[in-house]
Amino acid sequence: MSAIRVGLDVGGTKIEALALSAEDTILARTRIPTGWGDEGVIAAVFAAIAALSDEGGFTASEVISIGIGIPGLVDAAGGRVLHAVNLGVEELDLAAAIRARIPVPVAVENDVKAAAVGAGSLRGDSRSMAYLNLGTGVAAGIVIDGVLWRGARGTAGEVGHLSVDPAGRVCGCGQHGCIETFCGGGAVMKAWGRGGELPIRDIFDLAETGDPLAAELRAGIAFGAASAVRSLVLSADVETVVIGGGITALGDRLLDDLLARLRRENAASPFLASLRLDERVELLPAGSPAASLGAALVGAALREGENPHTGRVILGAGAAPSIPVGTGRPEIETEGAVHG
Amino acid sequence: MSAIRVGLDVGGTKIEALALSAEDTILARTRIPTGWGDEGVIAAVFAAIAALSDEGGFTASEVISIGIGIPGLVDAAGGRVLHAVNLGVEELDLAAAIRARIPVPVAVENDVKAAAVGAGSLRGDSRSMAYLNLGTGVAAGIVIDGVLWRGARGTAGEVGHLSVDPAGRVCGCGQHGCIETFCGGGAVMKAWGRGGELPIRDIFDLAETGDPLAAELRAGIAFGAASAVRSLVLSADVETVVIGGGITALGDRLLDDLLARLRRENAASPFLASLRLDERVELLPAGSPAASLGAALVGAALREGENPHTGRVILGAGAAPSIPVGTGRPEIETEGAVHG
Repeated sequence: MSAIRVGLDVGGTKIEALALSAEDTILARTRIPTGWGDEGVIAAVFAAIAALSDEGGFTASEVISIGIGIPGLVDAAGGRVLHAVNLGVEELDLAAAIRARIPVPVAVENDVKAAAVGAGSLRGDSRSMAYLNLGTGVAAGIVIDGVLWRGARGTAGEVGHLSVDPAGRVCGCGQHGCIETFCGGGAVMKAWGRGGELPIRDIFDLAETGDPLAAELRAGIAFGAASAVRSLVLSADVETVVIGGGITALGDRLLDDLLARLRRENAASPFLASLRLDERVELLPAGSPAASLGAALVGAALREGENPHTGRVILGAGAAPSIPVGTGRPEIETEGAVHG
Repeated sequence: MSAIRVGLDVGGTKIEALALSAEDTILARTRIPTGWGDEGVIAAVFAAIAALSDEGGFTASEVISIGIGIPGLVDAAGGRVLHAVNLGVEELDLAAAIRARIPVPVAVENDVKAAAVGAGSLRGDSRSMAYLNLGTGVAAGIVIDGVLWRGARGTAGEVGHLSVDPAGRVCGCGQHGCIETFCGGGAVMKAWGRGGELPIRDIFDLAETGDPLAAELRAGIAFGAASAVRSLVLSADVETVVIGGGITALGDRLLDDLLARLRRENAASPFLASLRLDERVELLPAGSPAASLGAALVGAALREGENPHTGRVILGAGAAPSIPVGTGRPEIETEGAVHG
């Protein structure tokens, strides 16, 4: 075994790790708790790689590239992380810190953008798609002709902060009625204001019993998600919007709400009906390794570039597509058990 | 003189025509009234080409390609026009009708998308830009790395029908509070409900005298334009948004309103401020030949394709970029007087 590409999705509570073989099969997946602050995050990344190599039966010397998806602003060209507030990181050259101990190409990418690359690879068809993440926040990654589309300054797909209601709630970004205020987990839980282990599920449940706030928030989630889909199609005109993130743990209940909303809008607008948005949305399957797989593919792309840090993965150097998505559909080997 | 590429921008009241030399200089421009219905439009196109050849001193046999920008849905692959309601055309194979008398490649493109190609060429830098047309309706064309970006089904840039206020006026498309209801000339004039030769200018003037409806509509124009710019940057992340169309006849008065609005939004949102939207907007210069020049370039691109109707200019066959923008900045020859 050799030529292993490692991908890590570093979240606010856990790191999902995945090892991809030279044959594009997933050798192993694992999940460990994340760390806090610069040192905590670096230590957790090394711990995740160690756990993964135990799981997959390979050594660090067999790893040829590492890709890391992380929430926050990322200077993908330099491998630096900026303003990853959920991780207590203000500015960190994560790629350099990892390379200091594992001397292979290390790519760092915004987690949603990395997940878009993974989702495109898993779908098999990534000619024209967006991955819309309904997590604590809301953002999307756009993949066109198999490559991640960054845009001119790396904000392509940031539809979470499109205001769709001037009378809406204030967003963390300072605007009113951003899409994220309707369907971002953080904003919804703040508006809900009650505890519980799965507040979004509580909201869906209580909406059915007539709780007015729950009903309002549940309708808002569908409205926000529909607005995000509409924005992605009317601006970038992606063929398909794949939806993932924490809120999609609700599965078909969320999808049914979204489809009902889109169809109600279609009924009122022949123009919207002609776009067939309801036929263009998909949920990322539960437990999908899109995020860590995408990170592995981002790392592999960096390795294949002639000059990793000034090659194709350049932030802000024009609208050049940057990260090729694997052409094949990686197969999940049953031996590589999924933890957690 | 030979190898002349002709471009026509067919509007609801006039046709703007332009002839481009082999050396990328504008040989001639002219403007004639448009026609109504299938036969009227076809006759007006031929009349425009005749007037243009008189103006530029060339014959039809020297024309090597024709490009036509036209409002409405366009099947760019087949050269057919669909639903051009302002011209009384329901379905017309305009390319075939023109080729029947002038046997050269004829491309037909949506007028805003053609203008985006022309605006990119005139700017010299078309690496990452949108052309936002504030005309009767509102739409944008996106140009990335010098090529028009159609999207998966040809709706890329259709930001006019993004709803930004659920409590807003009903749009012709059936939704409420579309961007077009705020800054589309048709919707604004309908809401204004008074006559006058230049109603948009009246609205700007009367807003300053305290007329409440005028003030509301004027503020709405800036809000709508700002929303369109924000949508284009947060979704497609174009570096620059060039704004043209009838409403921009107001020139700096419109631009000042828009910049003031964007800066007020920046003051409320550090996130928006970081996008520097106010530094990313430009007005298309008054009298710019962007639309007819773009049409000429679209026609030239079709000619250069090996198989014009199944080559790169394919509608709906994926997200492939399609129409190269000329690399140079065509120079306007002073001999080719601009009419009208």
